Amino acid sequence: MTKKKVAVILSGCGVYDGAEIHESVITLLRLDQRGAQVQCFAPNIAQMHVINHLTGEEMPETRNVLVESARIARGEVKDLREANADDFDALIVPGGFGAAKNLSNFAVEGDKCSVNPDVLALAEAFAEAGKPVGLICISPALAAKIYGPGVVCTIGNDADTSAAVVKMGGTHEECDVHDIVEDTQRKLVSTPAYMLAQSIGEAAGGIYKLVDRVLELTHEAD
Amino acid sequence: MTKKKVAVILSGCGVYDGAEIHESVITLLRLDQRGAQVQCFAPNIAQMHVINHLTGEEMPETRNVLVESARIARGEVKDLREANADDFDALIVPGGFGAAKNLSNFAVEGDKCSVNPDVLALAEAFAEAGKPVGLICISPALAAKIYGPGVVCTIGNDADTSAAVVKMGGTHEECDVHDIVEDTQRKLVSTPAYMLAQSIGEAAGGIYKLVDRVLELTHEAD
Repeated sequence: MTKKKVAVILSGCGVYDGAEIHESVITLLRLDQRGAQVQCFAPNIAQMHVINHLTGEEMPETRNVLVESARIARGEVKDLREANADDFDALIVPGGFGAAKNLSNFAVEGDKCSVNPDVLALAEAFAEAGKPVGLICISPALAAKIYGPGVVCTIGNDADTSAAVVKMGGTHEECDVHDIVEDTQRKLVSTPAYMLAQSIGEAAGGIYKLVDRVLELTHEAD
Repeated sequence: MTKKKVAVILSGCGVYDGAEIHESVITLLRLDQRGAQVQCFAPNIAQMHVINHLTGEEMPETRNVLVESARIARGEVKDLREANADDFDALIVPGGFGAAKNLSNFAVEGDKCSVNPDVLALAEAFAEAGKPVGLICISPALAAKIYGPGVVCTIGNDADTSAAVVKMGGTHEECDVHDIVEDTQRKLVSTPAYMLAQSIGEAAGGIYKLVDRVLELTHEAD
């Protein structure tokens, strides 16, 4: 059996202005444990904000999403523009505010948001190829932009966020932190992770299920 | 059974200038999975360097170890000076260059290094109280400074680093990435993690064993 190749999109390094670190590392750990070959990507753009994670306040500096994502990837990250869906069997996007600030502007615009064009083009290429995609935490807020109306996903049970998902044309299903929601037609898997998790172990439970299911779905294409 | 309380010392956020992110997250994950209560600490000092993790080059800026560590801890990190060994059952220090650049100056001074006085005082307090300590990756380079001559530990099998450990008075034991070395007299457990790991799954194997053994050793004091 050949190794499944999975692209992971990072959005910085830290829950309040980038990729959620625990979610990202747990995703990479599970993919490795299951024998997948991983390549991380991130957009080569400035972060929307730099947040002091100790105080929650904005810091008067700029950081680059690709450069900061390299911290999570131990240097092994490529510019998103180099990514080609043809080279991979699946795509996973961890959460963190980076998904809503750097990969899109959902944090500011809500249901009026737009997705970074390179991120959108890559995700659409996976969708159009019928390759499975996993969206974690707040990332499913991008699902309707990628798949169009009717896409089924979860962001847990937050009223405002799920209402925004519905306004964008998505079909929202409430989901426990330990579980996943699957749009079987579109091969899209989502899990709430830190939208609901009270601990890192809770986040890991749902993410492990998501990674395992995404990898299973790659085999359905064999 | 009351929850075991474990202090974790972080040293920034990123393998080349701070705490190794995978090692830190895997430590926090395993501690949570095993029911431990965790508090992260970090020194409130400037990082020795800021390294661009994409290029490996130094960046012309300054970052604070406590503030950057808060990224890994999702904000839940305290100034190391607030830590009191009396409040905890065990101490764990993940690796990354932060241990050798921010917690000590081992990266520059080698066997002539000194340890940050607050870090040293805290670790010594755990040692003197007979409470178990876990040192991951490059962190065991601090063991001889904490415990004095004869302390048994591992940094894997790197010739230069193990020679420096021996010069400082330590007894170095070679160790596989999947395994741990234990100084039973001192209740010190160490594992090579990314000193040897070729993948995040390999790092996790040794770290899981280390966390499990450190928690077992806390029960020996019951």
